[in-house]
Amino acid sequence: MTAQHGTTPGTRRRSEASRRAILTAAFELVGEVGYAKLSIEGIAARAGVGKQTIYRWWPSKGAVLFDAFLMLSEGEGDSPALPDTGDLEADLKSVLRATVAELNDPRYDEPMRALNTEIPHDPALAAAYAERLDRPMKELKKRRLRSAQRAGQLSGDLDLDVAIEMLWGPLLNRWLQRSGPLTPEYADTVVETALKGLRPR
Amino acid sequence: MTAQHGTTPGTRRRSEASRRAILTAAFELVGEVGYAKLSIEGIAARAGVGKQTIYRWWPSKGAVLFDAFLMLSEGEGDSPALPDTGDLEADLKSVLRATVAELNDPRYDEPMRALNTEIPHDPALAAAYAERLDRPMKELKKRRLRSAQRAGQLSGDLDLDVAIEMLWGPLLNRWLQRSGPLTPEYADTVVETALKGLRPR
Repeated sequence: MTAQHGTTPGTRRRSEASRRAILTAAFELVGEVGYAKLSIEGIAARAGVGKQTIYRWWPSKGAVLFDAFLMLSEGEGDSPALPDTGDLEADLKSVLRATVAELNDPRYDEPMRALNTEIPHDPALAAAYAERLDRPMKELKKRRLRSAQRAGQLSGDLDLDVAIEMLWGPLLNRWLQRSGPLTPEYADTVVETALKGLRPR
Repeated sequence: MTAQHGTTPGTRRRSEASRRAILTAAFELVGEVGYAKLSIEGIAARAGVGKQTIYRWWPSKGAVLFDAFLMLSEGEGDSPALPDTGDLEADLKSVLRATVAELNDPRYDEPMRALNTEIPHDPALAAAYAERLDRPMKELKKRRLRSAQRAGQLSGDLDLDVAIEMLWGPLLNRWLQRSGPLTPEYADTVVETALKGLRPR
């Protein structure tokens, strides 16, 4: 799923330029025409390369789109650690509000929707996603939750995978299924409800 | 999205038989070939009807599949109320364990996966799903949670939509994304964690 680069510096530069043009084209096109109508032909035309150049590096349009996401996240530098001000509730609210803003951003909506609905049907893409995007993100989240455990703000015997699913899962579902308004206030309610629990305290 | 039936009793019986044959064929076929390769032609051939019969009643293969789901849930009689033994935790565990069993059932996996990944791309299907399947189910869940609120087992000021997303959302995500084992024990952990909350008690 990773581009094979040429071996001389000149070839490598040209390959890298083609690779970026292809990934940018894929990301733009899926936002314009939707995933169903995204094609390798369309990406090649937009990027100004031949179809064979794309097929040499990627097995499917899903794989191209996935690498486009990786390029974007690399563009933002190393994934930053989650904020840790010592106030877990405030930190989680600020992170979940940022997630809401990203899910509501029209530039990302269709590409992310495509990726999220392709993954359930494509085990190879699912494995790449889990390995290269989901796991590093989950590790950052766990690091923040462990710090809160050490500070006594979270139960020591918590299943951290379940905790993460309980905080981020509702946002992802509501966005994918359009089952309700996805607002900053909703992000706050999810954080408060997850921390406090459904039972009266 | 609903089949238009003929007006004489004989026509109505024949229409109903064709309708059932089409829905059964759609449900079986999607399990065999996957949603991407499911076609109106294929459904028509399996059901022994002409393509035009299907197009007269449904606008898309997604709409056929959705009605196949409705037929299945009607086949199970009126959706039953959630169990209410007075023990909220035990009742929720039994319901979420049943959900896990259903999601793990190979007969349902591909059709449900298709429906869940088509909905994010098809606003008409999303609206029909919300109205005819999701809302009635959500109402049953809320009824059980309200009963628990009256019994003092749940916070009185709970946002019930968020509570439902916190209980059922993690299961749905884990199934769709294959992000971890979907077991009865996992269902129990989700119920316990949601009720107790992430903070120490």
